[in-house]
Amino acid sequence: MDQRIQNLRKEVDRINRQLLALLSERGRIVSEIGRVQTELGIDHYDPKREEEMLAYLSAENPGPFPSDTIRRLFKEIFKASLDLEERQDKQKFLY
Amino acid sequence: MDQRIQNLRKEVDRINRQLLALLSERGRIVSEIGRVQTELGIDHYDPKREEEMLAYLSAENPGPFPSDTIRRLFKEIFKASLDLEERQDKQKFLY
Repeated sequence: MDQRIQNLRKEVDRINRQLLALLSERGRIVSEIGRVQTELGIDHYDPKREEEMLAYLSAENPGPFPSDTIRRLFKEIFKASLDLEERQDKQKFLY
Repeated sequence: MDQRIQNLRKEVDRINRQLLALLSERGRIVSEIGRVQTELGIDHYDPKREEEMLAYLSAENPGPFPSDTIRRLFKEIFKASLDLEERQDKQKFLY
């Protein structure tokens, strides 16, 4: 394996770990938002809020990923977050 | 809007910005890996490397996202990275 690729892959591994930590932190905060919404009887899904986040992220995107790609990646994160909130509600009703 | 939700959403916004910065940094490094691979005549797609990264991230996943979700999110990031490398090759041949 080329030494340059090996070194660059170490950088990618470092970023992967940071991404995992940030995604997990985001998951914990979204769970908390989900709990407050359930307490208040508010829907978890908020398309206006999602569109505002996507518009902001597209506008601030420095590249090299095209903004379409950034939108697609964040939509997957939003979907995973909604799944988390909904699973949490179901678990609540089990007890 | 409930004040607790507003405060938590500010935290989410901060994390979104950090995720965007990290994804973009990862994109720049992957572009560099792609350039070296093209120079050496090596395929960009490396399923063994992808599986190693996914196994590591699943094992290190602290939650609350299930490891299946973490795998799905990172697979999307890998796909976006491969698209970036392939687009870069095509652009190279245009000049």
